[in-house]
Amino acid sequence: MNQMARIDTSMETQMANAIRVLAMDAVEAAKSGHPGAPMGMADVATVLFNRFIRVDPADDKWPDRDRFVMSAGHGSMLVYAISHLLGYDDMGMDQLRAFRQLGARTAGHPEYGHAKGIETTTGPLGQGISTAVGMALAERMMNARFGNDLVDHWTYVICGDGCLMEGISHEAIDFAGHQQLGRLIVLWDDNGITIDGDTDLSTSTDQTARFAASGWHVQAVDGHDREAVAEAIGKAREDARPSLIACKTVIGFGAPNKQGSHDVHGAPLGAEEIAAARVNLGWPHPPFEIPQDILTSWRSVSARGAEARSAWLERLNASPDKARFNAMLAAPDAVALRDAIRSHSAKLAADRPKIATRKASEMALEVVNATLKNTVGGSADLTGSNNTRSKGMAAVTPTDRQGRYIHYGIREHGMAAIMNGIALHGGFLPYGGTFLAFSDYSRPAIRLGALMGVPVVHVMTHDSIGLGEDGPTHQPVEHVAALRAIPNLMVFRPADAVETAEAWEIALTSPSTPSVLCLSRQNLPAVRLEPGDENLTRQGAYVLRETTGARDVTLIATGSEIEIALGAADLLAVQGVRAAVVSAPCFELFAVRPDAEREAVLGRAPRIGIEAQIRQGWDGLILRPGDGFVGMTGFGASAPAPALYRHFGITAERAADLANQLIQGGK
Amino acid sequence: MNQMARIDTSMETQMANAIRVLAMDAVEAAKSGHPGAPMGMADVATVLFNRFIRVDPADDKWPDRDRFVMSAGHGSMLVYAISHLLGYDDMGMDQLRAFRQLGARTAGHPEYGHAKGIETTTGPLGQGISTAVGMALAERMMNARFGNDLVDHWTYVICGDGCLMEGISHEAIDFAGHQQLGRLIVLWDDNGITIDGDTDLSTSTDQTARFAASGWHVQAVDGHDREAVAEAIGKAREDARPSLIACKTVIGFGAPNKQGSHDVHGAPLGAEEIAAARVNLGWPHPPFEIPQDILTSWRSVSARGAEARSAWLERLNASPDKARFNAMLAAPDAVALRDAIRSHSAKLAADRPKIATRKASEMALEVVNATLKNTVGGSADLTGSNNTRSKGMAAVTPTDRQGRYIHYGIREHGMAAIMNGIALHGGFLPYGGTFLAFSDYSRPAIRLGALMGVPVVHVMTHDSIGLGEDGPTHQPVEHVAALRAIPNLMVFRPADAVETAEAWEIALTSPSTPSVLCLSRQNLPAVRLEPGDENLTRQGAYVLRETTGARDVTLIATGSEIEIALGAADLLAVQGVRAAVVSAPCFELFAVRPDAEREAVLGRAPRIGIEAQIRQGWDGLILRPGDGFVGMTGFGASAPAPALYRHFGITAERAADLANQLIQGGK
Repeated sequence: MNQMARIDTSMETQMANAIRVLAMDAVEAAKSGHPGAPMGMADVATVLFNRFIRVDPADDKWPDRDRFVMSAGHGSMLVYAISHLLGYDDMGMDQLRAFRQLGARTAGHPEYGHAKGIETTTGPLGQGISTAVGMALAERMMNARFGNDLVDHWTYVICGDGCLMEGISHEAIDFAGHQQLGRLIVLWDDNGITIDGDTDLSTSTDQTARFAASGWHVQAVDGHDREAVAEAIGKAREDARPSLIACKTVIGFGAPNKQGSHDVHGAPLGAEEIAAARVNLGWPHPPFEIPQDILTSWRSVSARGAEARSAWLERLNASPDKARFNAMLAAPDAVALRDAIRSHSAKLAADRPKIATRKASEMALEVVNATLKNTVGGSADLTGSNNTRSKGMAAVTPTDRQGRYIHYGIREHGMAAIMNGIALHGGFLPYGGTFLAFSDYSRPAIRLGALMGVPVVHVMTHDSIGLGEDGPTHQPVEHVAALRAIPNLMVFRPADAVETAEAWEIALTSPSTPSVLCLSRQNLPAVRLEPGDENLTRQGAYVLRETTGARDVTLIATGSEIEIALGAADLLAVQGVRAAVVSAPCFELFAVRPDAEREAVLGRAPRIGIEAQIRQGWDGLILRPGDGFVGMTGFGASAPAPALYRHFGITAERAADLANQLIQGGK
Repeated sequence: MNQMARIDTSMETQMANAIRVLAMDAVEAAKSGHPGAPMGMADVATVLFNRFIRVDPADDKWPDRDRFVMSAGHGSMLVYAISHLLGYDDMGMDQLRAFRQLGARTAGHPEYGHAKGIETTTGPLGQGISTAVGMALAERMMNARFGNDLVDHWTYVICGDGCLMEGISHEAIDFAGHQQLGRLIVLWDDNGITIDGDTDLSTSTDQTARFAASGWHVQAVDGHDREAVAEAIGKAREDARPSLIACKTVIGFGAPNKQGSHDVHGAPLGAEEIAAARVNLGWPHPPFEIPQDILTSWRSVSARGAEARSAWLERLNASPDKARFNAMLAAPDAVALRDAIRSHSAKLAADRPKIATRKASEMALEVVNATLKNTVGGSADLTGSNNTRSKGMAAVTPTDRQGRYIHYGIREHGMAAIMNGIALHGGFLPYGGTFLAFSDYSRPAIRLGALMGVPVVHVMTHDSIGLGEDGPTHQPVEHVAALRAIPNLMVFRPADAVETAEAWEIALTSPSTPSVLCLSRQNLPAVRLEPGDENLTRQGAYVLRETTGARDVTLIATGSEIEIALGAADLLAVQGVRAAVVSAPCFELFAVRPDAEREAVLGRAPRIGIEAQIRQGWDGLILRPGDGFVGMTGFGASAPAPALYRHFGITAERAADLANQLIQGGK
């Protein structure tokens, strides 16, 4: 706390006002945006950066930097203003002037990858705080491996009422409290205002009591009393639990006629109110101009960060763990993984196990987790069903974070966001399991991961009516389509153990695309029977069984329905019909193959898609009028899996019949 | 409490054991299912039914019955056992023997509509408790309108650890506490066990403290001490707040070697353990046989319910409010609504307002809410953006439940589940708003509503990149496709004010299909310019502008892209190309039209789909190789809407160019 003695509070007031003015001016220029939160939280953010946060704009990826997450992402101008004031070289005043304009780094909400200093994309409420939990966990897991010399940083979050009303916040808070993530400090912008009006229109939860119930250290302060804020952050850092600091603020602080009301939340203040705010704040400077002394004060924050980074670099260079540390943060060893998977696949091609692909996934993970030391598995309380825990994976617990397996609890959404945070933090490759039907619960975080391009693997088992008796609530029928709809997401539905291993290899070596693995509950025969050097799954779709002579029909299937396609081809062969079988484990990878290759795989003969899902999403493969589809058209039912396949007509016989019809129709 | 004096506890023990034995035997017969929860909660459930719940198997839809929700839906055998014991005529022992088999009412999880006494479908965790909040709210809203004589019942929930770990539980609990839903009593099966093992693997939240923080009355009891359970329920009923009763139980109670462990959660006990349990419970009877005295005791519960219903019927028949009460519960007056919408549409066709469809929706709601007295609106804190509140709609508050508008707070998922509950309760037609991008948050509850077939309207505004500056986190690109993928869900994307009004009419008069209305933020020109008696939106897709002479191309669009299609047709007309324009506001309605009608609408000329979404889902309309699509292929960006439409090439010029290419290609 010796830093506090030398704080010039009048300068700190001006530092905070710089944020306020930049926010209101940028929103005014854009005629769009949210001035309320940046103006209200300017004091808190200024204290946080001025007195605590260690970042260095000269190296925005410095591994031991503190993480700052603006969970209330609509207050993006707070982030951009601070990045500008700290001197990030990609956040010149031109960017603030172009707030919310096409091509600017200053998007409406902070977008990861658009500008330095943005640790995660926020905007959909509740995501930031939950992602930050993953960062704070990853920090402690790295600390457990490398000690304080190399890993010793904090994760700070600013969140609003919306973040705390969203359900995902409960999952994140409960998890963080259980894991005792003392490096996580959440500053709640307790302004009592939401878009519809006062928060008491819709909530009366005592948030500090709620956080305390989940094992958090809680405090409440006046968010405009900077000494109180600093003292609270200091106390929070001394406590072993994660901390909530409720900061009572006035939304839009500084705008004399609008502050404290929902009018200031999400609309420009207008020229008149901005002029009045300038008078009120004692800020005579024109828009987008920051006096040099204020800028100098902000740059001293960066200088402190630069010093810390220098000292850290010295420690790293002197550390016997340097190589190991750098390896953890580097891209996974793709060659080693390829060789390991190749060897594993060769053995599978010989053994030809008839197993569920969820079991095949477990077998692949035995290889993967032995080869890559920084994978971190987990499940939303379905470990034995998702088969996500390979041998010897110890659990990550509050008292021992050396482990590599996370019990996420019954929190699919939180798990997905926490995995995003682990991946964003760096050091680990997270994967986690649940049932495919519950991808709906995780969906907002899966989408955000796809938008950011973070390498996370979602293991989704029980991927069709093949799960049987649990019935339609648990049976995915539209989920594969709905996931294929998300841009920059690879959806794998492997047919056997070899394809499953290949999918794992691709997923873990794709640095900027998350993956979903859709895996069966039920046993499936081996279909990849030849050892080969090539990862055929990487082609997205390939000819699994070619015809002798011209094709009469091509049967295209995925996952558990490959068995049906092969059975149909056998039936057709008896009838003298030449049916090729194409396995299509990843539509997204197939979609980017050259047209000629795609046409060669799919063939000119009538095509039939077979998948125990709805047809939607298949139009890239069976888009001609003479093509057909065997699959689901509505919800499933509760019964043993074989009965369901017969009931819904997803059988080799049906596919063979349809093939004959289409062949006749084409003649 | 005078009931308690005459309880025969030894008989009540046997009544509870009847549940236990039926559960373990049915799971064993099915070789699949979850015996742990029914056996653990048998005492609590028996007390609840034996001493409190008023239901009458002779009329499972009696409006003033108590509602019972098994939120821990995997414990479905508890529900089926009780329904059998109470004497529901569709739950004979044959159904219990056929547990989890094809065609049985006894699905793996309780399915609404499959059997009497199932108030809502449960299974996806957290949904039951949240749906129950809607039921409890609807009860008080009906009570506010009709008084205690006609509406005076309770909503009881059994939930497990999973329900309380899911994020949606926070949204429901916070909302219920705020609304002081004293008629809601949640019995938490506090057994300390989840699938992965002990709950302390993943949570350490003090649940009673957590509920108390949200304004609930909380108690904790031994869930096998029936007098304590009864006393707690009694106290809960006396308190004005919603109540949580933490019932400490032993999962699988009665199975001597497996109880209290996660082994008993989700697998058959096996013959040996079942035999041991029979000895342990003093239950010598064979499987699926209930001694008459025990059955008689259970039937006395039903008799008490029948008496209550008789008394209620007498009160109803004597009530001056009888007609009004019955009207609230009846299907909406479709004729009155049709006439009102027709008159509204005629005025719109004359006025031709250029407005956003979200604004058009507000105008339609002015008509709808004046015509139908039991619509209940709301928004997840975006009232002014979703335009969901028509004039004079008072808010539903803890102290005044006469209102018709609900501030759901920033709780999209909870809102959707609560709306399901309101609809299931009966008396009201709920609709609620959020941004379309956040349909991802609501998705599990939207899906459950579709599976159940409950009439709920999801108002989803800001339906494309047309929302502009908020950027890709807020811009739906795959959401329309992902919603179209859900079976039994109507997705409307109306083009102007007339189509918006028509969509409202259809949505509110579809008794067993929920709807999503995708509405624009930006203004759109009127395109339905002729007053007509027919609701054209009901056709799903129709020819908005026909050509003179044979079509050269057909432009098919939805919502905001109709303007672009018309613009393209104008450009093409100048070039001498005859382009028809088809408006397709609801793919699901179009899909069920006769083939000939579909072909006539879509035409034989090349077709171009235009929608500011991804192509997925359009394959029913533009299925042929010569067809084309103008839309999105990835995430959006932050910029003013017109700049985004140009940037992503969703323009009349682009569509016209593509039309010319396709026409050339076809020659």
